[in-house]
Amino acid sequence: VLRVLEWSDGAVRFLDQTLLPNTEQYVSASHEREVAEGIRRLAIRGAPLIGIAAAYGTALAAFQQLACDPSLVALRVSDAIALLRSTRPTAVNLFWALERQRRVLVRFELRPPRELADELLSEARRLHTDDAHKCERISANGLDVLPSNVSILTHCNTGSLATGGRGTAFGIISLAHERGSLKHLYIDETRPLLQGARLTAWEASRLGIPCTLIHDSAAPALMREGRIGAVIVGADRIAANGDTANKIGTYGIAIAARHHGIPFYVAAPSSSVDRSLVDGGRITIEQRDEEEVTSIGGVRMAPKGVSAYAPAFDVTPADLITAIVTERGVARAPFGPALRGMCGEADGQE
Amino acid sequence: VLRVLEWSDGAVRFLDQTLLPNTEQYVSASHEREVAEGIRRLAIRGAPLIGIAAAYGTALAAFQQLACDPSLVALRVSDAIALLRSTRPTAVNLFWALERQRRVLVRFELRPPRELADELLSEARRLHTDDAHKCERISANGLDVLPSNVSILTHCNTGSLATGGRGTAFGIISLAHERGSLKHLYIDETRPLLQGARLTAWEASRLGIPCTLIHDSAAPALMREGRIGAVIVGADRIAANGDTANKIGTYGIAIAARHHGIPFYVAAPSSSVDRSLVDGGRITIEQRDEEEVTSIGGVRMAPKGVSAYAPAFDVTPADLITAIVTERGVARAPFGPALRGMCGEADGQE
Repeated sequence: VLRVLEWSDGAVRFLDQTLLPNTEQYVSASHEREVAEGIRRLAIRGAPLIGIAAAYGTALAAFQQLACDPSLVALRVSDAIALLRSTRPTAVNLFWALERQRRVLVRFELRPPRELADELLSEARRLHTDDAHKCERISANGLDVLPSNVSILTHCNTGSLATGGRGTAFGIISLAHERGSLKHLYIDETRPLLQGARLTAWEASRLGIPCTLIHDSAAPALMREGRIGAVIVGADRIAANGDTANKIGTYGIAIAARHHGIPFYVAAPSSSVDRSLVDGGRITIEQRDEEEVTSIGGVRMAPKGVSAYAPAFDVTPADLITAIVTERGVARAPFGPALRGMCGEADGQE
Repeated sequence: VLRVLEWSDGAVRFLDQTLLPNTEQYVSASHEREVAEGIRRLAIRGAPLIGIAAAYGTALAAFQQLACDPSLVALRVSDAIALLRSTRPTAVNLFWALERQRRVLVRFELRPPRELADELLSEARRLHTDDAHKCERISANGLDVLPSNVSILTHCNTGSLATGGRGTAFGIISLAHERGSLKHLYIDETRPLLQGARLTAWEASRLGIPCTLIHDSAAPALMREGRIGAVIVGADRIAANGDTANKIGTYGIAIAARHHGIPFYVAAPSSSVDRSLVDGGRITIEQRDEEEVTSIGGVRMAPKGVSAYAPAFDVTPADLITAIVTERGVARAPFGPALRGMCGEADGQE
């Protein structure tokens, strides 16, 4: 498992993901502003990882203030929470992690500042460890359902660069590799932002996983050639009936997998299941800036004046999904009752 | 119909496609070397258009020589044919067009040089006109099978930038637009080389066709939303049973179209049907350089050492194709007999 973010010598040390895959540069943030800036400019990305970074950032504020004027620690922590909250306007994990730190602040603000700082750090570490454990459980559960010696196709990035542990879909893949049951990994480049080419390919290389990068549109041809034995993807949101919103392109892969009789797995923490959504039709799909289609790397590819449509996600209906793997087990059709059982005793936002 | 290549005032005038879509610059070639160079550096591309350009280039050589030393016209033409043949090593249309000019040379080399030059130009014009007519017939035949007021999805570039006329698949689309039966055009960007974003979007804009550019992987989501009423694509090669090789990504579109009950049309000249190939399994798929996946616009996107798989084409089996539209008519399943009937009296390579 790669460690791309950690608490180290009183600082938050993180890998600057904007420089991947060509440069591996770690930033040692000794002020919460640097953490906030790292989140804002996508040096730290992936919903779970953003939440963990923000929690450490809050602890960092406390320790920094402790060193100069302990009487102002609670105030500084309160400001840090506000600052970190402003970095990414729609990141649910971020708000949830900061809410946990706010509760620590409320509980400890009348205690000695040192205790408050220690407790904020402990809470951040708990968040981090919990997420890592969740990844391990998802990965172990996923390994149980996979055929042995299988070649897997994945889409987007769902590994250590996005979570506090080995990842969700990618966690299953890396565990399968460690256990000798992964034959080969095919990675979709994942237009528009190329998380597959830039991030997943980097993680796979670092872990020595045998892999091949392909264009998103080449996957069906590979399936026809018999090169792919299973598909595993992550999820941004799962409706109560199992319909799954994930990175644009996922739905087409699911259709092609069904056409070729290839199992299609979704891997995600149970917190991704939103029981308030009856089905995928209720999931709001974020529309990205047209520039993500008309330009690549800042270079305009399409003629001026041509409009583009850039949905960030698509919805894969439950009937195309073989199984949904969470840290609490594996759900199969009918997904409704199975997912309800898994999310029964939710711990907080999880 | 856009004219991107023509004989004009004793020169070959062509649009430099390497500068599209941002710059529209025409080159007026007064020496066959400039035409050869244009083909070599992809300023002129698309199999039919390359053949037409080479035919005009041969005539250009004859007229140039006529102006200085008429006794050497036949020799100069012979050299020009050799030069133009060397530009693109696997372009069948190029060889076929130059073979037509070589026959003109053989027939006229003992006649006055002026007659040879005139006849080479006439032959080039015939090739050009024939291709334009073929495009018109394909387009008219395609229009007959289309639903009215339909929104169409297309992939890659098959218009005036690739042919001597309005194009094949794109020809149908532009004719439907002229006749008021096109509701909207969706254009796949077509990774890796982005012919959709760069070329088809340019042609559609120039013709005032209402269009939207999308990522290749977004097409299935659009189909699910009911935005696409028909798919039309071109073909690089069609086997005797109707299996069709076309730009990578075509196969996935065909699967998704079938999944959503959307008609999927292939449009191509009957010369694309290769009756020596029993089925699509016999079609050799060109593998492109890995750099087309690992880099975009010369910028490395994937980590060093990661390998990639870059097939240029995929094969769509006949059973996913609603109809194959050629200049000789519309073939439907079973394609074998229908295609045999169309290719019965082949005229030369056509």
